[in-house]
Order: sequence, then C-alpha cells, then structure tokens
Amino acid sequence: MAAISFARGAPAPECLDQALIADCARVALERDGITILSYGTGGGYGPLRELLAERHGVEAGRVFLTTGGLQGFVFYAAVQLALRPGRVLVEGPTYDRPLKILARDGAEVVPLAMDDEGLEPHALEAELRRGGEISFLYTIPTFQNPSGRTIGIERRRRLAEIAGEYDLPILEDDPYGRVRYDGEPVPSIHELEGGDRVTFTSSFSKTVAPGLRIGYFVVPQALVSAYDDRAVSTYISPSLLPQATVYELMHRGAFEPNLDRVRGLLKGRKDAMLAALAAEMPAGTSWSSPEGGYFLWVDFAGDVDAAALLTQATEAGVTFVRGSDFFPNASSGRSSARLAFSYETPERISEGVALLASLL
Amino acid sequence: MAAISFARGAPAPECLDQALIADCARVALERDGITILSYGTGGGYGPLRELLAERHGVEAGRVFLTTGGLQGFVFYAAVQLALRPGRVLVEGPTYDRPLKILARDGAEVVPLAMDDEGLEPHALEAELRRGGEISFLYTIPTFQNPSGRTIGIERRRRLAEIAGEYDLPILEDDPYGRVRYDGEPVPSIHELEGGDRVTFTSSFSKTVAPGLRIGYFVVPQALVSAYDDRAVSTYISPSLLPQATVYELMHRGAFEPNLDRVRGLLKGRKDAMLAALAAEMPAGTSWSSPEGGYFLWVDFAGDVDAAALLTQATEAGVTFVRGSDFFPNASSGRSSARLAFSYETPERISEGVALLASLL
Repeated sequence: MAAISFARGAPAPECLDQALIADCARVALERDGITILSYGTGGGYGPLRELLAERHGVEAGRVFLTTGGLQGFVFYAAVQLALRPGRVLVEGPTYDRPLKILARDGAEVVPLAMDDEGLEPHALEAELRRGGEISFLYTIPTFQNPSGRTIGIERRRRLAEIAGEYDLPILEDDPYGRVRYDGEPVPSIHELEGGDRVTFTSSFSKTVAPGLRIGYFVVPQALVSAYDDRAVSTYISPSLLPQATVYELMHRGAFEPNLDRVRGLLKGRKDAMLAALAAEMPAGTSWSSPEGGYFLWVDFAGDVDAAALLTQATEAGVTFVRGSDFFPNASSGRSSARLAFSYETPERISEGVALLASLL
Repeated sequence: MAAISFARGAPAPECLDQALIADCARVALERDGITILSYGTGGGYGPLRELLAERHGVEAGRVFLTTGGLQGFVFYAAVQLALRPGRVLVEGPTYDRPLKILARDGAEVVPLAMDDEGLEPHALEAELRRGGEISFLYTIPTFQNPSGRTIGIERRRRLAEIAGEYDLPILEDDPYGRVRYDGEPVPSIHELEGGDRVTFTSSFSKTVAPGLRIGYFVVPQALVSAYDDRAVSTYISPSLLPQATVYELMHRGAFEPNLDRVRGLLKGRKDAMLAALAAEMPAGTSWSSPEGGYFLWVDFAGDVDAAALLTQATEAGVTFVRGSDFFPNASSGRSSARLAFSYETPERISEGVALLASLL
C-alpha cells in the first residue's frame, strides 16, 4: 500500500478530466493547427493571451504564458534582479522552489513575519526602512503555499500603497485564488495597485491540469521588453498546443463547470483534514483553516522536531513536508509542517492524520 | 504581397500535418491522460524518453526532453559553465541564438575556422593548445545552421579522438540530420565517441512541428544530476502533452512516412534555390551545396556589404539574414548571407533569388 501523501502539492487524478481535455486538444488543432504547430511569439498563444488580458484589463502584450508558473518566476527573478539588484523579500514561510532558484542565483533573501492573516505590512515597512536596494517582494497572498493563509483586504490595500510609497516592485503569485471552497473572493493586490509595480501571476495547474504546464504573467509595461527578450532567448516560444487546448476549453465555456467540479472534490478533503486534526491532535498543536487552496500549516507543540517526526511518519506510511523547507536557509519552521489535502481521499486523510497524531 | 522570406528558418505550413497531429494528441490523452496531465519528471514524458534512449543506445535517465532545443542549450551552457568555467568554442559562423545566450551569460566565445567540409580539426587543436580552461565546444556538424555544411566522417573521427585526448566536452547539435534529401547519412560524433564527453541534441521541430517545442538531449552520465536539477528547478517538468503526441505518432509508425513527405517537399525547394543561384548570381559569388537541412550560405563578391544589401532587398520584397549575425560580436561574415529555402515555394524561391541577384 502506497504511503498516504500529505507532501504532494498536486491535484488528485480525479480532478483531471482527460476526455474533455482530449477533445479540446483535437478541436484546437483542427481549427488552428498551422498556428499552433509553427513557431510562435515569446509570450505564447495569441487567443489565450487576449482572453487573459481582457480578464485583467490590460493589453495582450503584457500577458506572458510560461511553462508553468515556475518558469515565469525564473524569468521574473532574472529580469528584476538585473534591472534592480538588491534584496528579495519573501514571506516566512514561502514556496520552497523559488527559494532554491533565488539561492542558486546568489540573491540575498529576507523572510518577513506573517501571522494568521498572512504577511504583516509593518514587517515589510520595517524592512524597507532599513535601507539598501530592494529588488522585489514575492508574495502569495491567497491560500498561500505553504501556510494556507490569506491576506485580508485592508492589508492588501496597505501593500498596494506601500508599493507606490517605496517604489517597490511586487510579484503577486496566485495559483490557488480560484480554488476557493468557502467565503468570498478578495481583490488582488495587482487590481488594487493598478499594475504599475505589481506583476500578477497565476496558472492553470490547479484549475485544469498541472501537466499542461501553463503559467501566466501580467507584467508592468516597463518590464515587457526585458521579459520578452528572456522568453524568446530561452525557448523562442513556449509550447502552443497545451495553451490552445486550454483556450478551447475556456472558449466553449467548460472552464467554470470543470473548476466547480474540482472545488467540490477538494472541499471534502479540506473539511476531512480539519475535522481529523480537531479530533486527533494533542493539545498545544495549532493549524491554519484555509477557505481554499491545497495546503494547511501545522505548528506542533514547542519541542517537536518536525524532521524527526517526518522520519518516523514515513516509516509508518504517511508523509508531509517539514516547515523548515519553506524558510531561506531553514532559518525557522523547525516545529512546523505543511500538509497538503489535495491528493488523498477523505478516508485516507482521516487515517493519515490519526497516524500522525499517534506519533506525537 | 508578403515579402519572400529567405530569413525564416522554419518549415513551410505545408510541412505540418495538422490532422495527423490532432488525432495523435487525442489518442495520447485518451490512453495515458492522467500521466500526461499530472506533474511529471524533469526529463519529460517517460515513453518518449525510453524510445529515444533505445535509438541512441543509452539509459532513459540520460535523455532529457526540453522546450525546444534552445531551452536545453540554456541548461547545458549553465551546467557546463558552472562545472568547468572557461572559453566556449563555436563554429564560425554558427547559430545566432546560442551566441546571444552565451553573451548574456558573460561567456568568452571563440569562433573556429570552417571550410566547405565544416569545422577544421586543426583549428580546434590550435585553440586547445593555446591553453587556459575550455568549457565546451558547440558544433552543428550536419547541414549546419547557418552554413548548410556537413563535417565528413574522417573529421568526425578526429573530433571524437580530440574529445578524449584533450578531455574536451562537446555539444553536438543535430536538428537537421534526419532532413536529408541526397547522399548517405554520416554517423554522429556522439556515436563515434561513445557519449562520455559528447552530449547529443536534436529536436522534432524540423521533422514533426516546431510549435510542439520538443528538443531532446542525450547527456553523459556525469551531467545527469546537474542537468536534472536545472530542469526541475526551471519548470518542474516540461509540458507533457506535445511529447506524448509525438510519442503516439512514432508508436503508430507515422514518423518516417511524415518525414518522407517533408523531405519530398523541401528537396524541391533546395534544388530550386541552387538552380536559381547558378542561373542568376554574378561571377565571384559562391555558395554551399547542402544535401539536406534548411539553409545555404552565400559569399558575395568581396566588396558587397550584406547589411546594405539587406536594406535594399527588404525594400524590394525579399529578406535574408546577414552573415555577421552568426559570428560573436559580428567579427566576420560582412559579405555573406544565410538563405533559408524551407519556407517559400520553389516558384517564389526562383523569383526571390532573381530579385536578389538584380541588386548586386
């Protein structure tokens, strides 16, 4: 029996509608095959760029489709660090893959304090007042990876103001925002700020399928040329077939119904994990209660070593990711864990949480 | 009327079989949709890696599928320059996009002399004996972009020996080798050397469709781990749908028949261009006579400025790429041009060459 994985930040196979996507791929190629099969532009498939540009109220030339959101992060970090060398500010904790890219690029990375409502604007301002060049702030304001936390509207307004006051470039990463199970949507920082300094990115990995590898970036006009150069000199154009497939899926009105189905599947898993945590975890353990996304964050009682727990848990048949993996240089998060509820069934989630609790 | 393009190194739309590819995409997704739509490995779609590994007689773990060959070049250059900082040796002339990437990465690039049979091993040895660290040699030995030249078997044997004698890493780029119209195939340097120091790369851009963006790299065992890290930390996995589509196309035996059709289409264009050059060009002009690929190289009589000619030609309705674009820092090629015969019909090729000749 395979281990119960709270480590995989991936949609369960049941989320993926292979028949729908197969039909969309075929229709896209039959309708617009020559364009899809030829070299395209650095920004990707035109009709999908236009559709996303309309959604975000920008010119299509400001939308770049990338090989998943991570490829776009690689571009953004390279472009932004070259234009404006300086410290990169991140949330503590934050998504681990960008941390590895920034470390490889030799960037100085500063984690900022968060509470239950996400990034604290005061912590950001304190860091900005320290002086020295800042290259950019990287934030995942909605259903954050790894914490599941969401920045509220007031803080978002303040972050948008700070971007203007301090001339601070912000990369707002929002792959999970549309995967909301409860509560009301919150406007993006990008919307509140107007898109002069805030670059917005999302992807279709959590709403359609991750294997299609379609991220998208809405970049400020000032970055368009450098971003385009980077894309063209990396791959000429990204692969157009997956993008045209998603365009067809949206064009025929299948995007929202598919997403509703995914939301229905995953809400049951989130609720199962929250219920199991409440039922099983020892006193002193706390966790976030996200209204969407894939993850929640657990703080074990003070002296629990999450690394040692992971070793035991893996032997017992359940896995997760250690909290320290989400801080630069593992500087914090020693007694914390990221639990993904996206991949396992509600039954296996209950079983896995009980197993984990039994080891504490 | 659109300009006659001898600039576009792209297959003509008639080369692209959109109905075949649409059916392959649909069948691939219906058969193996969950794998294709989920996150995969850094190296790409397993069945296609295995098929290519078999073709090259290596383990599948040594084959990496990339977003076109250029993305893989970005990886190779980053990995190789980090492992072994030093000069990068290229053919003079060579493909312009890698030159731009190397310049951006701050690499010192040295062009080596070629003659009608391609890279001269003596020129390579002279450069190696100069001393100092060499990072790698980049060569396109068959139907080279931009020159159309092919390195013969004796020189290939000597290059394979030199790789061993001088412990020289070589990147052998072969996107055009299968697009042969006349003559007999020549073994790759990779084959002759055994793959210890030679990395082989090719793509499906010229045999199936460029918009699918599928390059592949067969890397020495010693590079596997660094190359995989680079791929995973760039895009987790490349887009699997185009790769699975090409796998299905090969699996059903459609690859060779499709390629035969493409060869038939393009041979007529190559022959038309050679005939037109012979009929129209003034004395003192010389050009390469490739047995395959997309390009040929024209050396105009000594005092012709290709940049000025391009300006005039563009006004008259025909375009090409200046020779100097294919040398680091435009250090040579002032009176030369790359002409692509892949994109235009034989009729328009004859017309375009006549137009060009009339300007000389």
